Order: sequence, then C-alpha cells, then structure tokens
Amino acid sequence: MDEFRVIEVKQNVMASNDAEADELRAALAHEGTTLVNLMSSPGSGKTTTLGRTIGALAREMSIAVMEADIDSDVDARTIAATGADAIQLHTGGMCHLDADMCRQGLDELADQLTHSGKDPHRDLVFLENVGNLVCPAEFDTGATANVAILSVPEGDDKPLKYPLMFEVCDLVLVNKMDVAPYFDFDLARFEDNVRSRNPKATVIPICAKTGEGMDAWYDWLRSLVRG
Amino acid sequence: MDEFRVIEVKQNVMASNDAEADELRAALAHEGTTLVNLMSSPGSGKTTTLGRTIGALAREMSIAVMEADIDSDVDARTIAATGADAIQLHTGGMCHLDADMCRQGLDELADQLTHSGKDPHRDLVFLENVGNLVCPAEFDTGATANVAILSVPEGDDKPLKYPLMFEVCDLVLVNKMDVAPYFDFDLARFEDNVRSRNPKATVIPICAKTGEGMDAWYDWLRSLVRG
Repeated sequence: MDEFRVIEVKQNVMASNDAEADELRAALAHEGTTLVNLMSSPGSGKTTTLGRTIGALAREMSIAVMEADIDSDVDARTIAATGADAIQLHTGGMCHLDADMCRQGLDELADQLTHSGKDPHRDLVFLENVGNLVCPAEFDTGATANVAILSVPEGDDKPLKYPLMFEVCDLVLVNKMDVAPYFDFDLARFEDNVRSRNPKATVIPICAKTGEGMDAWYDWLRSLVRG
Repeated sequence: MDEFRVIEVKQNVMASNDAEADELRAALAHEGTTLVNLMSSPGSGKTTTLGRTIGALAREMSIAVMEADIDSDVDARTIAATGADAIQLHTGGMCHLDADMCRQGLDELADQLTHSGKDPHRDLVFLENVGNLVCPAEFDTGATANVAILSVPEGDDKPLKYPLMFEVCDLVLVNKMDVAPYFDFDLARFEDNVRSRNPKATVIPICAKTGEGMDAWYDWLRSLVRG
C-alpha cells in the first residue's frame, strides 16, 4: 500500500496511565499481538531499522507500524513506500505517547486495515515513538516490550545522562556501527553504562543501513512474538 | 578551576514562565550579561562546541557555563577540565529548563564565583540545556538568544519533524561536518527545511572537533555580546 491515515491523537489527562497501559497490554496478549515500543533520540535510525526489519520478517509474521511524530508524515511515507502497513500519529506538540494515545492508534490502524480489505489482526506492531530520549521513557504505552536505539555518533555516555530510558528498556540496539571508526565510541564502555542502570538489558550492535548484526535482533523479535 | 557546584533546581509551577523570562532577560541586559541557551538532541556536540568556543574567546570576554542535565555531572566535569567556570544544574527528571530554574542557576553561579574570589559578572553565560529536541523549545529561559545544534548524523529532515525547535532559535549550528561524506546529509536541503520554519534563522556549518567553520560562530557571538 502507498497510503496511510494521519491521526491527531488526543491526550487523556483524566485516567491513570499505568492502569490503561496494563489493560492494553492484557488485551494485546489476549489477541496474540506483540507491541514493540521503539524509542530513541531524533535521527538514531528508528525508521531505517524498521524498514529493514519489516523486509526481513514480513514473510513469517504479519507486521504493521504506528509512526508517532509531533508533525509531518515523513516516517509513515518512508515505511509505506516499503509496502508495509503504516499509520501516522500526530501528537499535537506532545513529546511522548501514553497508553491511551497508543490505543487510539491501534484502533485506527485496525480500522484502516479493515477498510483496505486486509486482516486487521497483526502478529507484531511497532510503535515508533517521538524522537526523544527523555519523556517517552516516563510513560508506559502498554507495549509488550520497550526497545531503545542509541546510535554511535551520540556517544557511549548517554546511559549516565538519560538514565530512565535505559532503565525501562528490555533491549538496546546500538545503531550506525559502520561509522564507529570515525567516532570515539567504546562499545564495552557503553554496555557497562547500560548495565549500571539496567543489569537485565540486552545490547545488540547493528547497522540498519548495511544489515550488520540485524540477525540477532530478528531472533530477539521472533522469541518475543512466539512468546 | 576544577571543581563546580551541583544544583538541584526546583520547578516553579505557580508563576508565569513568560513573564519571568522577560524579567530575567531585562535584568541580564541591565547587567551587561549575554545569556545563550544552547539546545540540541543528546550527543549533537553541545559540550564539545562549548569547550572549543571558550578556548577561543576566553581572552576577549569573561565566560561561564551552566550545564543542565537530568542526572550525572559528565558535562560540567568536561567544561571544568578546560579551566572554565562551570556549574551543574540537575533538573530532577525534568526534560527542560524554565526561566525560574535558569535564574536559580545564575544566582548559584554568581555565588560560586564570589566564593572562589572571582568577579561574579560574566560577559557571556552559556546555558547547555537538557539534550532534547522537543521540550526545551517550549520554555523561554530568559536567554538573550537561542541556539540549536543539529549534527550531520541526525539527518537533514529534522526541522520538518521537530518544527518548534527550529522556529524558536536564532542560529542553527550544523555540527560534525567532518563525517558528512559518510551520511546522506544535504546541507542545502537542511537549510531549506530550516527556512521553511524560520526564514530569519542563521545556519552555520561547523565541526567542533576540528574547528572547521567555528570562526563564523565566534563572530556571531561577538556581535551578540557587543550588542
């Protein structure tokens, strides 16, 4: 498909976000849908990672993407151009998504798929969160798992400066490993910094542009989807 | 100096931020202090840019730096190691600084300088804001000017996706120009994207690591300080 809906999501300030998140997570588990909340700074490579991942896994599972952005539909266009099902969520200036905004997106996604004559059920849905290493970490979206991307040019000290993001994520992808020779980035030091905040986090170095290291990420996703 | 204070700034939710910002800006103008609010994503090179800038300008004007971070004092250590006067502001999880937090930082900075037997007046104070391309743009800190850094690896489409940051800034530094050959970054396209949001913004390509292009930035700062 090469078209997608653009949804202006509204903030629900009245409800308890944690309760809504737990409710959404339970509903998704019941439906057999795995929701992965993908977070990073702007420009770390979320969209490129998703584009390649969908290409690699689309034959073995049904996938869709919810692209969240403050404005523009650059990312949904990129994903839709790969032939994947995508929806664009506009946050209206908000710096993060909460569980209610995520649920609105999932409802619209199912509606868009149904109207396109497709099966609205998806094995795997990616939420590409707003590019921001701070605020998205504060809000449980109801996702099955949280994944953070840190790209080599950003530096290996970021878990010290943005601790919550690295505390709430289950997996950290270290992207743009192809340019590591041009930057002062120490992967072992980065892993130590992550583990000082979150001993359980898995760290996988990748290059979404070349495909280097992506197999380990695909295996991690397969395990997650198969539960 | 090789020591600096770490300040836990408190949010003042009662006051009108815009009024406080205007008041602070007027007070700074009266004192002859130029305050530059430096904003960017994590890892765009704010601290490296400041380190080199201080080295270049310290003989012609008195400079100090307020480093804002959610946690850690990595940046204040880096700046203090260059011999510059620095103070570390901790935001306690907050994703931005407002005018009141900025004023608290300036008061503590003056106090630290006085206690070190130094002149508390500074011609130029840099506020290195929290690494975040979204929220800091929403809060007027009272600064004389807003400067955003966008580094080449982040991509030339960022003004479309994070419009407010590029609307509120007076100058955009495009950092890490040395790695431009390894990334799909089109400087002319980036400038078009900035100007579509903010026709008045100045764009200066630099490499803070090598010093490339920094003279234009120093000249811009000299004009600002001389008023």
